[in-house]
Amino acid sequence: MDLDTLYLIDQKDDLGLEFSKLVSMMNYTRYTTIEAVKTLTIEELDFLYDEEANSIGMLLAHLAAVEKAYQIITFENRDLTEEELSILLPGLDLGSLGREQIKGNSIDFYLEQLAATRKTTIETFKTLPDEWLYVQTPFWWNRPANNFFKWFHVFEDELSHRGQIRLIKKMLLKHKAEKSQG
Amino acid sequence: MDLDTLYLIDQKDDLGLEFSKLVSMMNYTRYTTIEAVKTLTIEELDFLYDEEANSIGMLLAHLAAVEKAYQIITFENRDLTEEELSILLPGLDLGSLGREQIKGNSIDFYLEQLAATRKTTIETFKTLPDEWLYVQTPFWWNRPANNFFKWFHVFEDELSHRGQIRLIKKMLLKHKAEKSQG
Repeated sequence: MDLDTLYLIDQKDDLGLEFSKLVSMMNYTRYTTIEAVKTLTIEELDFLYDEEANSIGMLLAHLAAVEKAYQIITFENRDLTEEELSILLPGLDLGSLGREQIKGNSIDFYLEQLAATRKTTIETFKTLPDEWLYVQTPFWWNRPANNFFKWFHVFEDELSHRGQIRLIKKMLLKHKAEKSQG
Repeated sequence: MDLDTLYLIDQKDDLGLEFSKLVSMMNYTRYTTIEAVKTLTIEELDFLYDEEANSIGMLLAHLAAVEKAYQIITFENRDLTEEELSILLPGLDLGSLGREQIKGNSIDFYLEQLAATRKTTIETFKTLPDEWLYVQTPFWWNRPANNFFKWFHVFEDELSHRGQIRLIKKMLLKHKAEKSQG
């Protein structure tokens, strides 16, 4: 990621101008997510602040699952098959299924999953004309949504969870400080 | 807010096309923030999950303070004066100063503060040409940022805190359920 253009919502290499603006925002979002998690240990990634919590690892797996789902929804213009849904469900749904299945992974595992998913997204963006972003289909509550909104949703969901990751880290550090004092 | 165009990043009334896309994202963000908080009581808005926490009320005051700061930074193209900073500081900085000063307010207080601040933003956007969004100045770490990025930052910060608000609400409801059982 080019840090010199990180704060510019503008033309990026090999992308249409409209895609460039979207990807500029996706890039900054991802940069801040990675900054928040890149030094965490497996134990920290698995930390649950209470028995109903989502761990930071679960939230990172969620980001990749959401992006994979929106690749299908927008690039293939269809809903997920039952098989695709069952594969993505622990990450998509979070909660007890995620708590059971998403743990014990290093930060590299999550970051590689995120990078591989993002690579597919960007490669596909490069093949599409800017007008594609403004194509509308019926969406939530049968209201119209365009593809720009659907990809905005992918990064706005990431930002929301990045905020949660920062909060969970704050609780985690407090928990560790109390443990080492006690 | 027009719910029929909530999922469209596209032309909005009385705004240039580039401002329209930005405002489309700001609108959706604000809609989801309001949905998360609109029924909370004063006690719930003041809830602190631990002694270092930010309450939901503090986070809402923070959103308005950040937006007011960016009005000055971008519309007047200058830093905040010491007086402006001292007024906005409890909301901007959060932490102990915010915990001391921001409490006891109803949801209407916070929502009115947010709406009044947003009104100024949109009224000013309407007077500016789309090109303004792409004007660059040196910014964090002296790297260039354009005005689109600075306003993206305003809503990406809101999304991050909206995620935290949802998490704090989850802890708050658990806390209340345990209290009523105990």
